[in-house]
Amino acid sequence: MINIAVLGYGYWGPNLVRNFQETQGVTVACCCDANSERLGVVQAKYPSVHATTCYEEVLKDPSIDAVVIATPVATHYDFARRAFENGKHVLMEKPLTASVSEGEKLVDLAEKHQLTFMVDHTFIYTGAVRKMHEIISQGDLGDLYYFDSVRINLGLFQRDVNVLWDLAPHDIAIMEHLVEGMPVSVCANGACHVGNGIENVAYLTVYFDNGFIAHFHNNWLAPVKIRTVMVCGSKKMVLYDDMETSEKIKVYDRGIEIGRTEDVHDARISYRLGDMWAPKLETTEALRLVAGEFADCVTSGRTPVTDGISGLNVVKILEASEMSIKRRGKEVKL
Amino acid sequence: MINIAVLGYGYWGPNLVRNFQETQGVTVACCCDANSERLGVVQAKYPSVHATTCYEEVLKDPSIDAVVIATPVATHYDFARRAFENGKHVLMEKPLTASVSEGEKLVDLAEKHQLTFMVDHTFIYTGAVRKMHEIISQGDLGDLYYFDSVRINLGLFQRDVNVLWDLAPHDIAIMEHLVEGMPVSVCANGACHVGNGIENVAYLTVYFDNGFIAHFHNNWLAPVKIRTVMVCGSKKMVLYDDMETSEKIKVYDRGIEIGRTEDVHDARISYRLGDMWAPKLETTEALRLVAGEFADCVTSGRTPVTDGISGLNVVKILEASEMSIKRRGKEVKL
Amino acid sequence: MINIAVLGYGYWGPNLVRNFQETQGVTVACCCDANSERLGVVQAKYPSVHATTCYEEVLKDPSIDAVVIATPVATHYDFARRAFENGKHVLMEKPLTASVSEGEKLVDLAEKHQLTFMVDHTFIYTGAVRKMHEIISQGDLGDLYYFDSVRINLGLFQRDVNVLWDLAPHDIAIMEHLVEGMPVSVCANGACHVGNGIENVAYLTVYFDNGFIAHFHNNWLAPVKIRTVMVCGSKKMVLYDDMETSEKIKVYDRGIEIGRTEDVHDARISYRLGDMWAPKLETTEALRLVAGEFADCVTSGRTPVTDGISGLNVVKILEASEMSIKRRGKEVKL
Amino acid sequence: MINIAVLGYGYWGPNLVRNFQETQGVTVACCCDANSERLGVVQAKYPSVHATTCYEEVLKDPSIDAVVIATPVATHYDFARRAFENGKHVLMEKPLTASVSEGEKLVDLAEKHQLTFMVDHTFIYTGAVRKMHEIISQGDLGDLYYFDSVRINLGLFQRDVNVLWDLAPHDIAIMEHLVEGMPVSVCANGACHVGNGIENVAYLTVYFDNGFIAHFHNNWLAPVKIRTVMVCGSKKMVLYDDMETSEKIKVYDRGIEIGRTEDVHDARISYRLGDMWAPKLETTEALRLVAGEFADCVTSGRTPVTDGISGLNVVKILEASEMSIKRRGKEVKL
Repeated sequence: MINIAVLGYGYWGPNLVRNFQETQGVTVACCCDANSERLGVVQAKYPSVHATTCYEEVLKDPSIDAVVIATPVATHYDFARRAFENGKHVLMEKPLTASVSEGEKLVDLAEKHQLTFMVDHTFIYTGAVRKMHEIISQGDLGDLYYFDSVRINLGLFQRDVNVLWDLAPHDIAIMEHLVEGMPVSVCANGACHVGNGIENVAYLTVYFDNGFIAHFHNNWLAPVKIRTVMVCGSKKMVLYDDMETSEKIKVYDRGIEIGRTEDVHDARISYRLGDMWAPKLETTEALRLVAGEFADCVTSGRTPVTDGISGLNVVKILEASEMSIKRRGKEVKL
Repeated sequence: MINIAVLGYGYWGPNLVRNFQETQGVTVACCCDANSERLGVVQAKYPSVHATTCYEEVLKDPSIDAVVIATPVATHYDFARRAFENGKHVLMEKPLTASVSEGEKLVDLAEKHQLTFMVDHTFIYTGAVRKMHEIISQGDLGDLYYFDSVRINLGLFQRDVNVLWDLAPHDIAIMEHLVEGMPVSVCANGACHVGNGIENVAYLTVYFDNGFIAHFHNNWLAPVKIRTVMVCGSKKMVLYDDMETSEKIKVYDRGIEIGRTEDVHDARISYRLGDMWAPKLETTEALRLVAGEFADCVTSGRTPVTDGISGLNVVKILEASEMSIKRRGKEVKL
Repeated sequence: MINIAVLGYGYWGPNLVRNFQETQGVTVACCCDANSERLGVVQAKYPSVHATTCYEEVLKDPSIDAVVIATPVATHYDFARRAFENGKHVLMEKPLTASVSEGEKLVDLAEKHQLTFMVDHTFIYTGAVRKMHEIISQGDLGDLYYFDSVRINLGLFQRDVNVLWDLAPHDIAIMEHLVEGMPVSVCANGACHVGNGIENVAYLTVYFDNGFIAHFHNNWLAPVKIRTVMVCGSKKMVLYDDMETSEKIKVYDRGIEIGRTEDVHDARISYRLGDMWAPKLETTEALRLVAGEFADCVTSGRTPVTDGISGLNVVKILEASEMSIKRRGKEVKL
Repeated sequence: MINIAVLGYGYWGPNLVRNFQETQGVTVACCCDANSERLGVVQAKYPSVHATTCYEEVLKDPSIDAVVIATPVATHYDFARRAFENGKHVLMEKPLTASVSEGEKLVDLAEKHQLTFMVDHTFIYTGAVRKMHEIISQGDLGDLYYFDSVRINLGLFQRDVNVLWDLAPHDIAIMEHLVEGMPVSVCANGACHVGNGIENVAYLTVYFDNGFIAHFHNNWLAPVKIRTVMVCGSKKMVLYDDMETSEKIKVYDRGIEIGRTEDVHDARISYRLGDMWAPKLETTEALRLVAGEFADCVTSGRTPVTDGISGLNVVKILEASEMSIKRRGKEVKL
């Protein structure tokens, strides 16, 4: 039985507690939050969970095996560092850390102490992304050409991070999971329309070493809610529309054919239209699978699908994007 | 009565001939194309139109008042220069010219000879764009924040120009028509997936002097056909979806409210959701209005809504985008 | 303070308990269900609620002012009758009763005992239907012509009632609420495809005394989920699409114009296309408003918007539809 | 070479002339219309076509092999009768005739004279319906359960026939083509809202001898344009949405499973959700295939896919629907 402590009972904490409660082999032993009112809520709902405002208490408790950190990103590094130093496994909310250097230190610490370090990139565990991964990893799309995502709506303006730090981690993590190549540089453009210097609309391009390109459009000030990902390959293309209630994933048997000539510049490029297919998706709650994956990795010592390194890769792109966006799209090497 | 000659009877020429034929006060006197087979088609359909392969003949004919040029862009400059030098007004297909310097020379020539110089940015004359212009110019959106367009599909790969030169002129012209500020610089990112160095997917950002930002996504290799423009202001937002059969324009009474504080960094930003309104649009064929506008400007000496300068502004952005895309998003000043 | 008892803690009961708990002036004093396991759930969640399997206990308890009945329809009549005979107000789940005669007896009993009798036609209290009611009752649509609803999906096959009894009550109640005329007769067609004689696809037409017509399509065996209502008038038309996440209600300024002639048979009928408007809708949970309406009516003695008579009107149409559907669409007078 | 004469150059005639002109082995020798202005149009466009106002001339001309009749339905019978009596094959616009008795006489005449008699149910020749036919005829849907179609819009009010005669022939013909069972009776409901007794909204049910049911909703006064057909079977379901630009046909691997029990009334019915598949459709113009089918049948003596009998079957249902709609849904046997 793994005893876990959940840190932070704000927006996401209740979902974490509920899902870990329902996970075989896991006990939510403790919930820790600076706000005692929230602790009252958790205790009313789960009388068996010990509630505390004192993280020290958690760290010193030898019966706690693992810590799930769902606090503001600025606190991630410190909370995780102390967890590792006290021999506890860590599941971290996204984004992993506020900077690459923090993330690297945590990855090293976890490795040094031989502890599980996992990041909660929940979208990776949805039926839609799992199906895309299955399709892509078995080569159905052929050579991959580009990844294009749009995640926009009229949404909450964050006051400490820009719209890329807020919304792009989801899609960067999905890209990181689906695509095999190596990102080499980043360009970001955007604007702030409320006078506080925090971009509310942003466009991010990621270049890969193999000609692959990824683009992310994030916006807090859009008239409509759009959440789409397109992944295009030489044989087929996938469109993932998360706003669809059914048929979130559509696979298009479409593409181009390059005529054979001596010189590619003379080649006639025709296109091909075939069937479309919307596979049935698994509907298990993604966070349940996150909890299961974490529990299993803690038990077996296996590396999680979304380990600290994949969380760090997302932070690398975010940090570079921030350098680029302040320099109007200047290419920043990764 | 204005006598016009149409140069080029390829993809767009037949539409031009048909619409000018049906325009009051205009006679299509002549059609000129290097391909005599095409000329056979025009003559079978319009026996009154003189068909010729010889542009010299058109230039020397004093009864021809104006020339409509619908030939490949590489020929635009030369054909227009000679038309102006022979005292003929010019309506030019988009994009105006293959380079800014060519465009500038033509604008100067037209002015020097006091001749009408108009560019056929057809979209500007659609019911949808005219309605957007009406809404925006009467201030309904408030201060303008951004312009975002997506024009993608699985389409014909051009062999001489990249996807921005092919598809972006439509949307840049719309932006140029709707937005009042001054574009100052351009960043473009993209990739080529067929080995000939011509980008088939591209993202273009245009920065303005007043904080406004515009973005264009163009793609020849997309699984679905999307043609949208969003224009967002401080009071309202407009979504233009050209793939909708009705309700192409939707006006959203949505936006943000910035709480009043001493320091904007502390201000709470809330958002507001109101009604949506899809105004009825005029359905006159846009090219008919283009023909009418050209005829009217030739007659009256008035400057066209889409004059040579607006055509030139589009070319300026395209030329800068090409410099930027080859340098991975490097900002290029306009 | 009104003390209520909730009867039945199955599918809908938990929503009723939660909403009444959060309603000012109401205490959920008791929850009664034959299944003691379910009672365990309610008690764990609401320790202050008394849980019992014995309805007699509820009836005899003088501190209980009102009973909310969310049990199978076959039990509605008996439970409500005894509630009224014991001086308790009743909120009844839809459909009101299994037959018209039962419904009429309950309406009489409620009146005789001067007790509030309300039916939980939840849809009437949604933002969408309230907005439609506002628009229609202020005459925006002009003279009403027809009501057309489609409520289909791949859904649970009921084993005791056909698809009209299962799904149509929602839309018949909406029609009854929006339309003023008097329904005079009913025709229903349908089929059973599973061999048990219970129709799983059905079409219901309701004729009114003033030429108005209403039609309902209900289906448990459809490939897609559709939930639409169209209401058409002489001036405007409304489309209510409950599957839309935003813009559930669209008002179309469209209609026909009948040319003036001596003889209507010669009149030219042209049509008119105008703007579309999607008003912002209130988002308060409908069941919260149901709870509030019931509490207010119990307190004030006012007749509820969805009183026993409106519930009875729905049952009249359902009962007639069953007679008609078994006779292949034979008109059944109401 | 088959010489054909086209009767009627109104709305559909130009499409017929164009398509027959482009059909191998066919010459449009003659076009006949009472309106000489229209004949001027056809002659300007096709100088080789002989234009006449005199049908007698057509009938007496031995070089004319076949007549294509695209005149108002009231004239169909007489024009076709005389064509057959003069030894000419006939392609008839839909609906075949204004009554069943007229249709039967024509079918007999054609048989007696051994002439081809075909009805132009154009939709049968579209890529969408051909694909549905392929899917259904190879048994993919399993046992067929129902056919449901909606064809509504804000459209032209006809002055001589109601909305069923105007719009339903398309969908009845599609049903007749796809479904094998025998229709046995018809119920129709509807209303007229303009005072001339001609129904502008109508609902038609067709019962089959094997439990299959078909339903048609037609409406000239709807806020939106909808054109859908659902065909549901025991294994799969098809949705045909003619308003989609791509993916007009969607095949859903969905259905119900009836648990095995002694008594079907006790059987638990569960449902099954699988993949969706949108096959690529052929895009040849349907009317081109109609022209080809007619030419081929005239040449070979083969019976057309849409022969006089299938046209007559549609008229049988229309005639019965008119009897039923005037009697408020009374079942009319076929």
